Amino acid sequence: MKEQSRRAFVKSSVVAGLGASLPVSAAKTLFVHHVYFYLKNPNSADDKAKLLEGLNKLAKVPTIKFVHIGTPATTNRDVIVRDYSISWLCFFDSLEEEEVYQKHPIHLKFVKDYSSLWEKVAVYDSVGPKR
Amino acid sequence: MKEQSRRAFVKSSVVAGLGASLPVSAAKTLFVHHVYFYLKNPNSADDKAKLLEGLNKLAKVPTIKFVHIGTPATTNRDVIVRDYSISWLCFFDSLEEEEVYQKHPIHLKFVKDYSSLWEKVAVYDSVGPKR
Repeated sequence: MKEQSRRAFVKSSVVAGLGASLPVSAAKTLFVHHVYFYLKNPNSADDKAKLLEGLNKLAKVPTIKFVHIGTPATTNRDVIVRDYSISWLCFFDSLEEEEVYQKHPIHLKFVKDYSSLWEKVAVYDSVGPKR
Repeated sequence: MKEQSRRAFVKSSVVAGLGASLPVSAAKTLFVHHVYFYLKNPNSADDKAKLLEGLNKLAKVPTIKFVHIGTPATTNRDVIVRDYSISWLCFFDSLEEEEVYQKHPIHLKFVKDYSSLWEKVAVYDSVGPKR
């Protein structure tokens, strides 16, 4: 993407953010937040169940437009990363709505109650037009 | 997830795969395929535009149920990975439908025509129930 196009794109994302009160279908941008959790005890079924319990509570943050909780698939090629325990994918209508999620009491309580379970997280935030 | 639950889950995924001709809403599993592309020339607007062109062609593989093409968001915390150039996210109804995508002529042509642009890809495949 050319720098000029990128700036125009960023600008349109901001505009989409301002239009957060419009119906979902009117939003032009999709903000994809994908988190891969690495448990301290990856072989503990109890710890995995606890994290899933926490994520199911976290899914209630109201700005989340779509959520998917997964585990590594059985696909196994060289390029595939499969050492994480849990995948947490959510969609937001804008950067601003993701910021609301980050600061939401449900999210803060999730981090407080469950962060002792994981060793690290790898987070990928990406934005692009809705198709 | 306990091993027994995991096996039951894998089994239910296979069943969902066999039911590929059912309406989408009847499928129980979502297969999430997320690819992060690292360009050989990350500062080349031309190379980025070429890859986007290729991905827009790739999006036509018929087993893809949803697709999103993005670039790293402006969010910038320690845990956020933002050194990739392009995020390619797609959903499939099953592992089997993702395998169809991998072998589809459109995908093979995409790899042939565009793989010279990237240095590496990081692929995360994860499966979990539809909510």
